[in-house]
Amino acid sequence: MSLTTPGPTVGVVGGGQLARMLGEAAGPLGVEVVALDPTPDPPAAPVVRDTVAADFDDESAVLALAERVDVLTYEIELADADALERVGEETGTPVHPDPGTLRRTQDKLAEKRWLADAGVPVPEFRAVENAADLRAAGEDLGWPVMLKAREGGYDGRGNLPVTGPDEAAAALDELGADALAEAMVPFERELSVIGVRGADGERATYPVTETVHEDEILRESVQPARTSDTVAERAREVATDVLDAMDGRGVFGIELFECASRSDAGVSSGERSDPRAGSEILVNEIAPRPHNSGHWTIEGAHCSQFEQHARSVLGWPLGSTERRGASVTTNLLGDVEETGPAELSGVETVLGAADAHLHWYGKREARPLRKMGHVTVVGEGSEATLDRARELRESVTFR
Amino acid sequence: MSLTTPGPTVGVVGGGQLARMLGEAAGPLGVEVVALDPTPDPPAAPVVRDTVAADFDDESAVLALAERVDVLTYEIELADADALERVGEETGTPVHPDPGTLRRTQDKLAEKRWLADAGVPVPEFRAVENAADLRAAGEDLGWPVMLKAREGGYDGRGNLPVTGPDEAAAALDELGADALAEAMVPFERELSVIGVRGADGERATYPVTETVHEDEILRESVQPARTSDTVAERAREVATDVLDAMDGRGVFGIELFECASRSDAGVSSGERSDPRAGSEILVNEIAPRPHNSGHWTIEGAHCSQFEQHARSVLGWPLGSTERRGASVTTNLLGDVEETGPAELSGVETVLGAADAHLHWYGKREARPLRKMGHVTVVGEGSEATLDRARELRESVTFR
Repeated sequence: MSLTTPGPTVGVVGGGQLARMLGEAAGPLGVEVVALDPTPDPPAAPVVRDTVAADFDDESAVLALAERVDVLTYEIELADADALERVGEETGTPVHPDPGTLRRTQDKLAEKRWLADAGVPVPEFRAVENAADLRAAGEDLGWPVMLKAREGGYDGRGNLPVTGPDEAAAALDELGADALAEAMVPFERELSVIGVRGADGERATYPVTETVHEDEILRESVQPARTSDTVAERAREVATDVLDAMDGRGVFGIELFECASRSDAGVSSGERSDPRAGSEILVNEIAPRPHNSGHWTIEGAHCSQFEQHARSVLGWPLGSTERRGASVTTNLLGDVEETGPAELSGVETVLGAADAHLHWYGKREARPLRKMGHVTVVGEGSEATLDRARELRESVTFR
Repeated sequence: MSLTTPGPTVGVVGGGQLARMLGEAAGPLGVEVVALDPTPDPPAAPVVRDTVAADFDDESAVLALAERVDVLTYEIELADADALERVGEETGTPVHPDPGTLRRTQDKLAEKRWLADAGVPVPEFRAVENAADLRAAGEDLGWPVMLKAREGGYDGRGNLPVTGPDEAAAALDELGADALAEAMVPFERELSVIGVRGADGERATYPVTETVHEDEILRESVQPARTSDTVAERAREVATDVLDAMDGRGVFGIELFECASRSDAGVSSGERSDPRAGSEILVNEIAPRPHNSGHWTIEGAHCSQFEQHARSVLGWPLGSTERRGASVTTNLLGDVEETGPAELSGVETVLGAADAHLHWYGKREARPLRKMGHVTVVGEGSEATLDRARELRESVTFR
């Protein structure tokens, strides 16, 4: 294959921090990025070739974008799968990951059914359309259950624990949406695997990451994960099974639960002979795009998830997913009570730390718990690196 | 200090590969870049906020650039030091590195005099205005001497070895410019140190790099340099002396000769008690900007020379110059006989190599020996990494 100038152009639906980091990674490859986003001057703008101001589901804008790029991708689940599919067919522009995968991951029930059908271990779940369904699910799975909106949830929004049958009606009212109920998973820790599908069936996974959440929002990604080699290996196996169930190319964030044992986990499988029976790993959710839990790969792996995404959607050879050492990413969340102009103070500590790498997303407003940037600390071991990352994160504030 | 959105903007005179890599490094810091270059759609364009089409010495364009940025810098020695100085004074926009430093490094005679006056070891040299001067220099320094044009030389252009007095007149005719003559330095190897001056007198040096030239054009940068610890340490000392002789902030490429011994080297110093007397290191040239010999820092050091340059010109804390491991950068030069469209074939070998990082500069035309990109290979030791880099470079071609 050849490199030329200009190189290929990737069109991205969404111009947030993921598009920004995709742009940062694409430059060295000679790949150009054009991002579509309704926000004027979105985070990606200063580092990409161009931005297009349009709603994510503005099909004529997506069509115009397709006509000036070599491949279409998306960095946000709000992308319109149907529009992408039609535009891809109409213009002949490849769309990766496959819009069908996007559609499935937009509906948590469809996603779970698809994974279970593909033999991927997931927590037991039931479709819930009304309070009777929810009560029956609780009886079946055991109380409490996790009630999840089928669509639109992220960072814990749209998730509601329900402790018993008396709460069913009120919980459904509060959620106000089609839902599913999941068995509560008594997990030891949460893990994530960034996986990638390339051309000609090539696929690869990064080493498993330990993810630390608080109020269901990702705070820290720890690499290597503080778990056993067996579990780490099993996590990559399960992630590979997920990749095998996909169509098309691209990078995927695969969120996992590590459970103490099969019997605690409520795996949706009946037979004892099921190969998943010994599994300690369950798949929680899949993001058909680079994922917050893979930001450590920028400094911590040979090829970052963003470079990998550019390579994969273009059908180029994949890069190495090998780790370069220990690394911890800590999110810089809006630690504010109210929305206000983005101003992070105390950054001299991060900039002055030899082992820290600052990533600022270029968002104009800090909002409570909004992802404003991240810091990746590289080091020798997970524990010390995590301590260091926490120390640095505590030295900065938006207040 | 605080980070905001939008962050500070750096205006760069020059929009070539150095501005491109500056843009790639600035993004994560929330720093924006605007580049001025006469070429339409220069290499930096796809990855920076904006480009301005104007000649490097178009003072009104530089003035307009100054008015929209927080600090002015330059990535090419063709920048106009006088214009930058006047614009800086007129608009109050800081210019880094200091235009006086740029002016001095644009004139090789002035540069050598300034370094020698500052006590920095350099090869012995004489000003040459006519053939008589050149013959006298040869008598003084010993034949052969290296005749160098005072201005405009780079990548070996403007350098001419002169073997004896009979050639003096013809050599000066061929050079056709004001010149200096330098003692030929029988160096063991060429080295380079990337140095940086920050705010409040902060300064730092990267570990010394071994540079491999062919026909006076840099081919490979080897890290760590294959030299003794004593020499490596002395190189950083000398580079620090150079930094101390500077004004203003920024990143500097400091090219060095490693000589077998003092007596061979023709150091421009008279007294035996001179602290330079034992030196095996001589300064060859200084570039007041990030330098080709520092591209390894992108993957090979904690903070790249480009991030470092952004930090330093903004007066931010400097980043760590520590090495992350061995790395070798090999330049992708135009291996063509004639100018033609840039098309590098065989890149699947580089993209498929786990240890290789491709950097494409986005130049539209390949010209003989033009710098079109580079590949940095990271590894365990200099020798094996260099072998690997050569192997990969030989697998690609513009022909």
